[in-house]
Amino acid sequence: MRKVLAFDLGGTKFAFGVVAEDGTVLGSGRVETLAQNGPDQAVKRVATAAHELLLKLNLKSSDLLGIGIASPGPLDIARGCVDGSPNLPGWTGYSIEGELSKAFGLPARIDNDTNAAALGEYLFGAGKGRKNLVYITISTGIGGGAIVDGRLMRGANGNAAELGHITLDIKGPACPCGGNGCFEMYASGTAIARRTREALAHGTTSSILSLAGKVENVTTHHVLQALAQNDPLAKKIWDETTEYLGRGLAVIIDVFNPEIIVVGGGVTAAGDVLFKPMREKALRYAFPRLAAVCSIVPAGLGGDVGVVGAAACAFEASR
Amino acid sequence: MRKVLAFDLGGTKFAFGVVAEDGTVLGSGRVETLAQNGPDQAVKRVATAAHELLLKLNLKSSDLLGIGIASPGPLDIARGCVDGSPNLPGWTGYSIEGELSKAFGLPARIDNDTNAAALGEYLFGAGKGRKNLVYITISTGIGGGAIVDGRLMRGANGNAAELGHITLDIKGPACPCGGNGCFEMYASGTAIARRTREALAHGTTSSILSLAGKVENVTTHHVLQALAQNDPLAKKIWDETTEYLGRGLAVIIDVFNPEIIVVGGGVTAAGDVLFKPMREKALRYAFPRLAAVCSIVPAGLGGDVGVVGAAACAFEASR
Repeated sequence: MRKVLAFDLGGTKFAFGVVAEDGTVLGSGRVETLAQNGPDQAVKRVATAAHELLLKLNLKSSDLLGIGIASPGPLDIARGCVDGSPNLPGWTGYSIEGELSKAFGLPARIDNDTNAAALGEYLFGAGKGRKNLVYITISTGIGGGAIVDGRLMRGANGNAAELGHITLDIKGPACPCGGNGCFEMYASGTAIARRTREALAHGTTSSILSLAGKVENVTTHHVLQALAQNDPLAKKIWDETTEYLGRGLAVIIDVFNPEIIVVGGGVTAAGDVLFKPMREKALRYAFPRLAAVCSIVPAGLGGDVGVVGAAACAFEASR
Repeated sequence: MRKVLAFDLGGTKFAFGVVAEDGTVLGSGRVETLAQNGPDQAVKRVATAAHELLLKLNLKSSDLLGIGIASPGPLDIARGCVDGSPNLPGWTGYSIEGELSKAFGLPARIDNDTNAAALGEYLFGAGKGRKNLVYITISTGIGGGAIVDGRLMRGANGNAAELGHITLDIKGPACPCGGNGCFEMYASGTAIARRTREALAHGTTSSILSLAGKVENVTTHHVLQALAQNDPLAKKIWDETTEYLGRGLAVIIDVFNPEIIVVGGGVTAAGDVLFKPMREKALRYAFPRLAAVCSIVPAGLGGDVGVVGAAACAFEASR
C-alpha cells in the first residue's frame, strides 16, 4: 500500500506520522515547535524525529510517495511558507515545504490546516467520496475547507475557505480580519464562553456560575453541563449558538451547494444537542433546492485529523 | 477552429448561437420562450431555428463539439432540467439537456446562467486564464458563479454560488430564499431603487424625484444621474450601496481567495463611480493576505454573455 509522510505544524507542537493510502497512521510522533525560536530549529528537529520514525518502521524515503504539511494560515503556497501567521512569529518567508522536501528527497506540499482537514475527511473520514464537501471546525475560532468536485479548493495563495469570516452582521463588532460581525465572533467556543460571561456579568443568575467557580473560568463545557440540568441561561445561550451556527451553515450551503457538511472541533463533543438544532436551522435558512441535497454530520477523524489531513494533501498532490 | 452550439434560456427569450473556441459568435438568433406554454414547444422552436442557423452557416451537427445550455436556476443537473424556476412554471422535470441533445445528435450540458457567465468570463472575457475567479452580476438580483482552479464549481445539483444570498444581516428582512438580510436585498438594482423610494417616501427632498417624475418610477439610473449633480440623497444611497457591495465582495474574497472578481450586470454601467469605492471597501473588509492578491474588474462579455457563457459550458464539458 502506498504511504506518505505527514507533518502537522502548530504553534506549540509539530506532529508527524507515516500514513497509508487507506488513512491508517502507521506510526507517529511529535516535537515541541518552540515557535519563538524560529522555523529552522523546529524543522530540523522534526525532520530528525521523522527520520527516526522511518527507521523504526523499516522504511526508506523512496518507499514514500511524498510529504504533506498542514500548517496554520495565512499561507503563501507559491513560496511554501506561512505568511504572517500570528502564532509563528518570524516564520514568514521560510519555505517549510522546500526544507522538508530537501530533508527527505521527496516532493512536499503545504496546505492550510483546516483545508487539509477537509481533504482528510473527504479521503478518509465522514465525507468519504462525497465530491462536494465542506468541512468546518468549531473550536477556539471557526475554520473551514472545501472540496469542490473531488479536489481541494486552495485559492489564489492557499487561503481559501476562511469560513469563520462569513459575515452574520455587518453592523456587528469589528473582527481582527477587517470585517465586522464574523461568524466565529458569535459561534466559536471562545464566543460561546464570552457571551455566557457577558450574561453572567450583567447579573443573570445561573448554575453555570457554580459549575465554573467564577465568571472568568466559564467555558462551553460548563454551558453544556448546565444545559443538561435545564438551566435557563444555558438554554438561552445554546439556542442562540445553534441559531448562529445555522445561519453560518445556511450561507455555506448557498455558496457551495455541498452534498455534505462535516463539522469537527471541540464544540462538537456536545453531540446531538448541537447537531439536531444546528441542522434544522441551517436547512431552514438555506435555499430549499440546495438544502434538500445537503447532509450535516460530525467529523470522522477525531484526534488524528492533523496528521491524516496533511497526509491527504500529499496523496492529492501525487495524483 | 472548434465550434459549439449554445442556448441561453430566459423567461422571455430563448437565444442561441454558434460560437468558436476563441469566443467569437459566428451566428446567433432568438425565439420567444412563451414560458407559460411549457418547455416542449419552446425547445422545438428553438431547435428548428438553430437548425436553420447551421444551414445558413453551412455547418452540420458533426462539425460541432457539443451543446451548452445556460438556464435560470434552480437546476437539477442530474436530470438536465430546471427545478422550480419561478419564471419557467411547468418546466420542472423536462430534460432540456436531453431534448436538445437528441435534436442535434450531440452531447449537451446545462448550467445555471450565472455559472455559465462565470465560465464565459474565464474562457473568453475579463478573467481570461485567471484560474480562481468569481463572477457576480448586479442587476434585478445578484447572482454569482465561481471558477475553482480552472473549473466551474457546479455543486451537488448544479446550484452552487448563490452569491446574492450571502448574509449581510441575520436580523434583516426575510428573503424568499429562506434567509434574512441577504446581499441582494441591499445591493441589487431592485434594492437600490427600493431604498431610494423608501427615502423619498419618508419625505427626503432630492433631484431624483424630478428626474424620475414620480416615486414609483425611480431606478438606479436616476440615482446615478442625481449623483452626477451632487444630490445629497443620491450620494447617501450610493455610499450605502458601495458599502453593501464591499461587504458582500469581502465575504467572497474570504471564502474563495480568488485572483479576480469579475462584476457584470446592468448596475455596472455606472463605471468608476461604482468600481472605485466598491473595490476600496471590499479590500478593506477582507482578510489582508487574501485582499492583497485579488483584483476586482468589470465584465468583458457584455450583451453576448448569455450565449458565450453557454458555449463555455459546452467547451468545458468536451475537455
